[in-house]
Parts: sequence; C-alpha cells; structure tokens
Amino acid sequence: MNYKNVNIEDYENIAEILGNKERVLWEDGISEDYSHDELGGISRKPDILVKALDSSEISKVVKYAYEHSIPIVARGSGTGLVGASVPIHGGIMIETTQMNKILELDEDNLTLTVEPGVLLMEIGKYVEDRDFFYPPDPGEKSATIGGNISTNAGGMRAVKYGVTRDYVRGLEVVLPNGDIMEMGGKVVKNSAGYSLKDLVIGSEGTLGIITKAVLKLLPLPKYSISLLIPFGNIDNAIDAVPTIIRSKAIPTAVEFMQKEVIYSAEEFLGKTFPDKSSDAYLLLTFDGNSKEQVEKDYEVVADLCLEIGATDVYIVDTEERKESVWSARGAFLEAIKASTDEMDECDVVVPRNCVSEFIKYTKELEKEFDIRIPSFGHAGDGNLHIYICRDGLEQEKWEEKLSAVFKKMYTRSEELGGLVSGEHGIGYAKKNYMFDQYCENNIEIMRGIKQVFDPKNILNPGKVCQ
Amino acid sequence: MNYKNVNIEDYENIAEILGNKERVLWEDGISEDYSHDELGGISRKPDILVKALDSSEISKVVKYAYEHSIPIVARGSGTGLVGASVPIHGGIMIETTQMNKILELDEDNLTLTVEPGVLLMEIGKYVEDRDFFYPPDPGEKSATIGGNISTNAGGMRAVKYGVTRDYVRGLEVVLPNGDIMEMGGKVVKNSAGYSLKDLVIGSEGTLGIITKAVLKLLPLPKYSISLLIPFGNIDNAIDAVPTIIRSKAIPTAVEFMQKEVIYSAEEFLGKTFPDKSSDAYLLLTFDGNSKEQVEKDYEVVADLCLEIGATDVYIVDTEERKESVWSARGAFLEAIKASTDEMDECDVVVPRNCVSEFIKYTKELEKEFDIRIPSFGHAGDGNLHIYICRDGLEQEKWEEKLSAVFKKMYTRSEELGGLVSGEHGIGYAKKNYMFDQYCENNIEIMRGIKQVFDPKNILNPGKVCQ
Repeated sequence: MNYKNVNIEDYENIAEILGNKERVLWEDGISEDYSHDELGGISRKPDILVKALDSSEISKVVKYAYEHSIPIVARGSGTGLVGASVPIHGGIMIETTQMNKILELDEDNLTLTVEPGVLLMEIGKYVEDRDFFYPPDPGEKSATIGGNISTNAGGMRAVKYGVTRDYVRGLEVVLPNGDIMEMGGKVVKNSAGYSLKDLVIGSEGTLGIITKAVLKLLPLPKYSISLLIPFGNIDNAIDAVPTIIRSKAIPTAVEFMQKEVIYSAEEFLGKTFPDKSSDAYLLLTFDGNSKEQVEKDYEVVADLCLEIGATDVYIVDTEERKESVWSARGAFLEAIKASTDEMDECDVVVPRNCVSEFIKYTKELEKEFDIRIPSFGHAGDGNLHIYICRDGLEQEKWEEKLSAVFKKMYTRSEELGGLVSGEHGIGYAKKNYMFDQYCENNIEIMRGIKQVFDPKNILNPGKVCQ
Repeated sequence: MNYKNVNIEDYENIAEILGNKERVLWEDGISEDYSHDELGGISRKPDILVKALDSSEISKVVKYAYEHSIPIVARGSGTGLVGASVPIHGGIMIETTQMNKILELDEDNLTLTVEPGVLLMEIGKYVEDRDFFYPPDPGEKSATIGGNISTNAGGMRAVKYGVTRDYVRGLEVVLPNGDIMEMGGKVVKNSAGYSLKDLVIGSEGTLGIITKAVLKLLPLPKYSISLLIPFGNIDNAIDAVPTIIRSKAIPTAVEFMQKEVIYSAEEFLGKTFPDKSSDAYLLLTFDGNSKEQVEKDYEVVADLCLEIGATDVYIVDTEERKESVWSARGAFLEAIKASTDEMDECDVVVPRNCVSEFIKYTKELEKEFDIRIPSFGHAGDGNLHIYICRDGLEQEKWEEKLSAVFKKMYTRSEELGGLVSGEHGIGYAKKNYMFDQYCENNIEIMRGIKQVFDPKNILNPGKVCQ
C-alpha cells in the first residue's frame, strides 16, 4: 500500500477545508485516548484528528484523503473491543461524537432519524420518555449508534427482538471517494437491488462512514419483569435454556452468570448482589403489554426451572433489587478487566443448545492451561463473552497460552456450528481466527467487495478481511 | 458477453454428469412454461433444463457451466412477476422444485432447515401443525422458499413481523464457480465479517444459487382475529393507517381494498364478499397469546376507526367469513389479470404515511391517461400493488401510455422517499426504473459486487443491476 506520508500541510489544508482549526488536531495535540479502543490489543495515534460536525464535512475530508491517498478511519466513542477503530496505518481519524443530534421522531412510520454520534443510552432515554422502544440493548450504553451499526451490535434482548441490523431501515453513508449515498429509507420493505445497507451494517467502518441512520422503533412494552434464578451449578443453569425455549414462552433476555464473576462485580462496584448462595444464575426478563400475560409467561418458566433443578426463583421487582442485579450485570466486563493485569476476549456465538457444552469446554481449558477463564453472556442467544486473564504471567508464557487457548476455543465453536463473533466484530484482533474458519471463497468475496467500495484502500485499511 | 453456443453435446455431458436422462431435458422436450414467469413481460426457453435433486448436482452443473461459459439460471415455481427467472441469454436452467424436503425442525434453536424448492404453503402447514410460526406471508403461497429468499419477499404480516430477510439465519449457496458455501448458520447473532448472506437475500439468483436455508421460527401466536372495516372512500380508509399506528396497537397486517377490485375477485372466484356497501375497506389482523390482549388491541383500533370515519366494523370470526374475505384478498392479482387482456405492475414501497397521497396520484393518472389503474396492497407497510390494465388498447398506444404512467409513478414514489420495489424485486422488468432512481455510485457498486461473485457473468446475466 502506497499511502502518502501525512504532513503539517495536510493538516493545514484540512483545517482550511473545514474553515476551523479547533476541531482539527495535529500530532501532539491529539490525546493518547485516540490511539486505542477498550481492548483491541493494538494502538497507534492518527496523524490528524477531525471532530466532524456533519456529513458534508466528512465528505470533504474523505475526498481530500481519497485524492491524496491518505488512510482514514472513523471513530465513535472508542468502546470497541477488537481494535476496529485504531488507525493502524496512521493518517486521518474522523471522530463523530459531536454529530450527536436526534434529528426526527416519526410517529407515523415508527422511525427515529439520528446522527451517528448519538449514544445508545441517549436513544434509549429519548424514545422511552416518549413511550417508544429501541430494542437492541448492548451492555455498553456509552457506545455511539454509528459504532453499534458498524459492528451489528447485539445485546441482551436479541432472544426476543433480534439485533441492530433488524432495526436499521436506512443509512446515509460517505463512500471512500467522498460521495454521500443513501441506502434504504423509512420504508418497511425493500426489494430494490442488492442490499448495500446490510453490507455496510457490520462492516466496521471499512466500506463507508455512516453519517445518518433511520432506526425502526416499536411501541414501548407496558410491563417488564426480571427473574433471578439460582442453580446448583453452571451446567444445570445453562441446560435449562433450551428447555425454556421449548416451552414457547419467549423471554426478552436470558443471561447467565457465575459466582466468581458476581464477586468481581461486587468488588468493582462496591455494591452487594442480592443472592450469593449458588454457583450459577440465570437472569431472565419478560415483557409485554399485559401484566397478566407477562406473569403467565414467567410463571411457566419459573415452574419449569424449579422442576429441572433451580434452587429458588427471585422476582426482581423492587427498584433496589433491579438496580443491584442489573448494575452488576452491566459491570461484568469492567470488573473482570479490573481483576487482572491484562485480558483478551472471545465473543463466539454458537447455537443456543451448545452453550453448555462450550462453557464446559472452557472449564477444561482452564485446567489444561492453568489459566483463569471467567465468562458470562447471553445464554438465550448463544453469544458468550469469555475472558482469558493474564494474572501476572510473564509475556512469552502469556502470549503462548493465549494463542493456544484461543485456537482451541474457536476450533470448538466451529465444530458446534458457531462463528468467531456474535456482536463485537472482527476488527483487527480477530481476523486470523475468522480466516481460519471461513473458506477461501468467502474471504476472496469479502476482499473483492472491499475493493469495489474502496479501490484505493484508504478507508480503515487492514481490518476485517484484509 | 461471449457465451458458448449450447449444443446437444452439452446436454449429453450434463446428463452424464448427473447419471440421469429423465431430469435433464433438451430443447423441444422443455415445456413452454419454463420460458416465462407470471408477468415479467419477457420470455425465452432455456436450451437445457435440469431438475436438480440436491446441492451436489447443482454444484456439478454450475461447474460445467463455469468451465464452458454457459449462462445458467435457477427457477423455483416460476411465480415471479419481474422476469427474474427467465433465461434471457438461453443456456441452462436449474429447476429446484424437486428439492422439496423439510430437513430439520430444531425446537431448541427455533429453526427450520429446508431445501429451496419447498413451497411457502408447505412450510406454513408444517410449522403450524407443530405449534410454530413462520411469519413472512406473501400472497403467492405456491412460491418456493428459494424464490421468496431471492426476492426478499414481504407479504401481509410485515407490519408486525418484518420480511423474509428477518427470518433467514443461514444459507447454503452454490457460487458461480460451482463451489458450495455456507453463510450464517443456526446462530442468533453474527458479527463475523461482511454479511454475504444478506447480500444473497434479495439478489434474485444473480450471486449464487440457494440450495438450503435455515429459517427462524417463532412460537405460533395462540389467537388471531381479523377486522373488515368499511370507509366512505379510499382516502379515509388509507388516512386511518398512520392514526392506527400512532395508537401503538401494532396490527399484524393492514390491507386496503377497493370496491372495483373486490368485484373482480368475486367474479374471478364465483364467491360473494361479505360486504359491498362501501367504496373502500381496511382489512386488519391482530394476533397474540392472550385473547384479552388481542381483543383490547382491536377494540382500540375499531373505536379509533369509527371516530375517524369508518361506517362499520365487521369482526371476521366465523370460518365462513374468514374464508370469504381472505380468499378474495388472495385472488386480487389473478382477478385483475383476468379482467384485462394484458397488464403490468408497479410494486413501489413508500413511507406508510404517504400511501394515501400515492394512491390519490394513481387516480389522477387514471384520468390523465384515460387508462384503468386498479390497486390493492399493504397499507400498513407502505407497499402497494398497482396494475396498469391494457383493456384492448392497440400495441403502440399501450406501450406509450404504460411507459409514461410508469415513469410518473416511479418519479412520484421517489419524491415521497419510496423505492422501486417493496417485495417483487427488480429482475428484468424494473431495471431501468431502478437505474433512474439510484445514483451512479450505487449502480457501480452493485455491478462491482456482481463481478466479484461472478467474474464470468454466467449466473442469471442481464438481471437486477446489469
């Protein structure tokens, strides 16, 4: 790749193009924060940082990058876990957090039009205050919607409601040549040509920069209740999930958690979890428009769980209990991170009736490699978050064990019909594992598509399929 | 394009490759039926017809076509409306209707694995007999699931449940080079690289031949009820739809119908529609797991409709009434077809609060061009089916009027934020209208993607973006 060496002139040109020097930063003026994400294991600062205000600015900067063959990467709030937003070839970074306006709530079409830098938590609050519902519910609420769309983020409510892809009706995208293009719209159906929108969703900023999104909303369900169900051990807990699904009561979310992770969260938050009598728990949510129906659904599931080995069923109905259970759940990633000097993550997704087998396998690996592997995740949709903790291991040993454990885990997930990433993406960190799993045709087609969108390979190069 | 001239030797080679002469047909042995679909306005017979039994056979035939540069087209039951399955360059046609096995119902993962030739009506019956639900509900129940996936078929229940894309978890696809590739799987989430599965969905057989699909199921809702609501005129009827949506009672389906179309259906079926007192009707369905909830939902909507001008509300609750209403709705397309010597269709989708304006516009065009333009469709999701009827016009006049009316309609739909096709696809017949609407980048990217999948351009050439 022959990229231009970016210099102070480029910086000045871009500042001039935007007519602004405060939102265009150069080298030492750029904070270290922009050199990495939350976990991706790779870091490099951009040469130029642009805090964009609108799609026209992004279009102009991308056109400049295109004309001068400068690599360019978009970044939201930097909460990614696989290095997707790290500018590994330097160049220009476009930060979208100042593009944070909710542009329109359309109650006739049940859509919300937003800029890419709006945070997930802001969308949640905005629509729920107006009695609407944006179902995707990733744990990281300070992620931007642009980032969520770029990784096709999933979250806890995928069991019932699906993932981000299912709630994106339309996109405005700046292409690698700087042109602005619309994909989809407010329409419910679309059979008009190849779905480029669905290609951009989950492409981790390699095919275009998302500058606007039309999201699909639902009416807010009137009732929602969670159950915390303790089991004697993790196998019993997870084995209950397919049984729950077979009962045809569809929970909104089914999370599993283990004692050691709960302890980490308690320590991290300085708050007490309501129950610690058991080794493993399922946390289930049910929602709907009628209290009776929600109660009927969860009673069926509660009885079923008691029949197959649950030791109790706690209804999470007080504000205090809700806060203590869900704040713990929300803190798992940070808590595990705080419990060790370094860690890496495996975000596999497997068919939901293989979760138990996969977790059992990670326990075997813990013993085989003498390394701590805590996990938690979305038992209801088969998406697991598994952490390999360094715990003071010396560098060489750590790298060796990490690589061996990862290889074994991804191989096992493939055998079970799983995929390398359920919701965190491939970015930089997981490329090789995806290359191992996918056939040559698959990789070649992805690379070909990248080439079609981005013939000069300037947009987030070295990511996903490269 | 330099395709090989297919000759009797190719026929014999393919018959030998498959070890079968009965399922490989040549020229005069091929029925005229294979030269066209239900409406696409284009016809040509394939030189060779292969009635495939499994993906390995398709792989072998495609490999042969690839090596010899022979165009190849897949066909399900031929119920398309835009000529997508017509072999306009001749060559080989692969027919999938003998690949009609339901391979697996997985109750733990709520998936149904099927071959591409299974009919929509067979899937519906199979899953409903087992208390499951496959929500996509296109009017044409004798379409194959392979065809439905290839056009991203929508249907009546899109208002609440979405379209075919939302229910395809995994695909097995034969690529244009003959290799077999898996995309997705039984997993609920997927952030592992570009979503090639979503690219193949809706690509009308131009990127690969679907040989297996893993569909997502839901538990069957326990209650379902329809309301037939007469309005004084079509504007009142359609204007009620955004109001219904704003009430936050989400109906499963909202169809609109007009007196003249109902008359055509009565004549076509030889059956009586339960009410003909009004000019226009909405047909709504509500479903759910509790009778009380379903009743509450439809009562809100019934009261609302009466408030804003409905002249009555009929509950479609007897088997007799259901049969008469839904059989009429199911026969609209065929009835309009039977009412004229020739017709063509416009399958636009617009934001749902623009349906009324669009229908009004078609009435203006009826007068302006002195041509009959009956319509019906999915008022709840903005997808309209509008028919321009020839009614004995001489050829030149017909072509002139048809072209002018189409041009005006697609322009208007674009102004309203709509798209050329909601669910029937682009195929051959609607290409130019899509080219008119989409920007150059969009068309170039689609063509580039086609080239990446199919560098020899042998798979269904001349369709969608070519």
